[in-house]
Amino acid sequence: GFSECLQEWAELDKDYQHLQEIHRQYKQKLEEVSKLQTSCSSGISRQRKKIKELAVSLEECKRNPPPEHLSPDDALTIADIQDCISERSSAFLEMEAFLPTKNGLYLSLVLGNVNVTLLNKQAQFAYKDEYEKFKLILTVILLFFSFTCCFVFSYRALDAMFNFLLVWYYCTLTIRESILINNGSRIKGWWVFHHYVSTVLSGVMLTWPEGVLYQMFRKQFLTYCMYQSFVQFLQYYYQSGCLYRLRALGEGHNMDLTVEGFQSWMWRGLSFLLPFLFFGHFWQFYNSITLFKMSQLPNCKEWQVAMCGCSYMVLFLGNFLTTLGVVYQKYMN
Amino acid sequence: GFSECLQEWAELDKDYQHLQEIHRQYKQKLEEVSKLQTSCSSGISRQRKKIKELAVSLEECKRNPPPEHLSPDDALTIADIQDCISERSSAFLEMEAFLPTKNGLYLSLVLGNVNVTLLNKQAQFAYKDEYEKFKLILTVILLFFSFTCCFVFSYRALDAMFNFLLVWYYCTLTIRESILINNGSRIKGWWVFHHYVSTVLSGVMLTWPEGVLYQMFRKQFLTYCMYQSFVQFLQYYYQSGCLYRLRALGEGHNMDLTVEGFQSWMWRGLSFLLPFLFFGHFWQFYNSITLFKMSQLPNCKEWQVAMCGCSYMVLFLGNFLTTLGVVYQKYMN
Ligand SMILES: CC(C)(COP(=O)(O)OP(=O)(O)OC[C@H]1O[C@@H](n2cnc3c(N)ncnc32)[C@H](O)[C@@H]1OP(=O)(O)O)[C@@H](O)C(=O)NCCC(=O)NCCS
Ligand SMILES: CC(C)(COP(=O)(O)OP(=O)(O)OC[C@H]1O[C@@H](n2cnc3c(N)ncnc32)[C@H](O)[C@@H]1OP(=O)(O)O)[C@@H](O)C(=O)NCCC(=O)NCCS
Repeated sequence: GFSECLQEWAELDKDYQHLQEIHRQYKQKLEEVSKLQTSCSSGISRQRKKIKELAVSLEECKRNPPPEHLSPDDALTIADIQDCISERSSAFLEMEAFLPTKNGLYLSLVLGNVNVTLLNKQAQFAYKDEYEKFKLILTVILLFFSFTCCFVFSYRALDAMFNFLLVWYYCTLTIRESILINNGSRIKGWWVFHHYVSTVLSGVMLTWPEGVLYQMFRKQFLTYCMYQSFVQFLQYYYQSGCLYRLRALGEGHNMDLTVEGFQSWMWRGLSFLLPFLFFGHFWQFYNSITLFKMSQLPNCKEWQVAMCGCSYMVLFLGNFLTTLGVVYQKYMN
Repeated sequence: GFSECLQEWAELDKDYQHLQEIHRQYKQKLEEVSKLQTSCSSGISRQRKKIKELAVSLEECKRNPPPEHLSPDDALTIADIQDCISERSSAFLEMEAFLPTKNGLYLSLVLGNVNVTLLNKQAQFAYKDEYEKFKLILTVILLFFSFTCCFVFSYRALDAMFNFLLVWYYCTLTIRESILINNGSRIKGWWVFHHYVSTVLSGVMLTWPEGVLYQMFRKQFLTYCMYQSFVQFLQYYYQSGCLYRLRALGEGHNMDLTVEGFQSWMWRGLSFLLPFLFFGHFWQFYNSITLFKMSQLPNCKEWQVAMCGCSYMVLFLGNFLTTLGVVYQKYMN
């Protein structure tokens, strides 16, 4: 009825006043936050600069000690300060995790100057988790797609769609990985670069015209893609396992998990994964050799052959050496 | 000297304590802000829902008035409330400009769940400005590139690089435009879709193998690209002019600029621009017809010919009709 409407409206109006008040507060707080943000960021960079200068002066003091001043006590003080300094650098990193970071070159090119920093640990974790899930879903799709191209339909146009999807997928990965790095992930530069190279490779495969040479390489390429999806699948279990365990460690609410427990889980995962990875690297090497041989054939006119060969060689070298490096580094720790 | 170092360190330490305090405040305020954000967003959606229900009930009341209750005064009250309701909808939109928005499908696919809302007007303006500048720079690069391909070097591999750049450029535009829409730009859906179609078109051009047919279309394609860059150049002056004038109007600190002044500037700009735009649309139509004719040739085996033809037809229809629609809509206002 009408009176109920009036009553309802009065209530809504009261609610609305309240909402406006909240929104006013919100805007005010937002401004305060952005001011504090600026002063934190500039404070950190000022401290960093001064600390750097101080570190230099301290080294100076230690190297040419004015004998009347530098007692053993003083030497101890210097060592103390130097310890403090290295602690502070990590404190600054910790602080910066909550401050927006300037976008790197690639992100500013693709997205422009929009802020992609996630301002709390949960959001950062959720983002990484989503990234892994995204890779998983696309891996499954790519597996089916390459299977279809390989065994069911053999059309150049379908292959082109597959390669187009690959280009899009790798592009997207590079963007997401740049966002991850912006949010403090310690992902190695090579894995990101590896996705740039893969983008170019898929783009070149896209332009390779149908012909005898294309048909010669097609089966090998598609089975390689299938194998890669399979390895990516295994990698997903390892990476997301690491992620969840590290998070549980960091939050400390899972008492069963210790650093040693994590280490042993990691090594078990790695030693299962590594043979498959190295076989994949070997396959990349094999692809590259096959393509170089093809480019020597008298009927080879396509520039794509040599170009793909080079890309596979780059991928092989980079992946192989970086993986060795990672394992060595983990072993040393 | 050593004592200066000690003094410096003491000062740094004091500064550091202060910084820590600011950072603590900052984190606290950040949390408060995110709480207020949530309560604003949910408040708005609750109000929206209730207002929708109330509007229905009011309509009900007006249609079947219980005669004992609905005096002329009551009818007036209803009209008043209805006015208020439409005012509120725009107030909610205004409020939402400062609240983070959920990403649409495309952005969540490409970027994942990272928040790209710019939380103040200056940042939104700066972002749009940067978008226009980005288009300008890429337009100039593409103009030189297509000129080089057309008149200087004629290699299929260089053409492939040109098309690859186009694919990248259009992909980037779709991402940036999605971010703009997320930030409240009223850009028509077609212009975004038009960039998806352009991405596909450039991707297909990329896969078109060298041959008689490719060479037949090549010159026409490259001159078309040059013309398009030229039009984009003109468009830049119009769009960024609009942007700056609208901003000056919105901020109201330029007393010389009135709404009528803006309107007349806009119409002068538009009437200069429109002939060039329509000629571009006509050229798209012409490309499409050329390609359809080519696809009828007995020696045409490439699927790319018909596919590009269709894409140009879609582009022509969409651009032409949308531009007409925009002009008609502006004329009506
Ligand atoms: C060797 C490997 C298993 C080590 O993984 P790891 O134990 O997570 O390595 P790190 O400890 O150095 O990881 C540091 C960070 O980089 C990330 N990372 C490591 N390798 C990555 C990869 N290939 N892609 C994306 N992110 C990766 C980790 O998730 C971690 O992120 P975080 O800082 O946000 O937590 C992993 O690098 C890998 O799978 N590499 C092989 C890839 C390959 O060769 N592919 C081709 C196969 S055909
Ligand atoms: C017709 C035209 C000049 C009108 O521009 P306008 O006056 O800015 O149009 P509107 O008022 O509808 O603009 C609404 C919004 O969409 C944006 N916009 C309009 N056309 C756009 C386009 N083609 N690309 C990107 N953004 C566009 C405007 O910048 C504005 O953004 P805002 O809300 O953030 O301020 C413009 O749409 C245009 O240039 N279209 C032709 C494009 C074309 O045909 N290209 C092919 C040529 S060969």
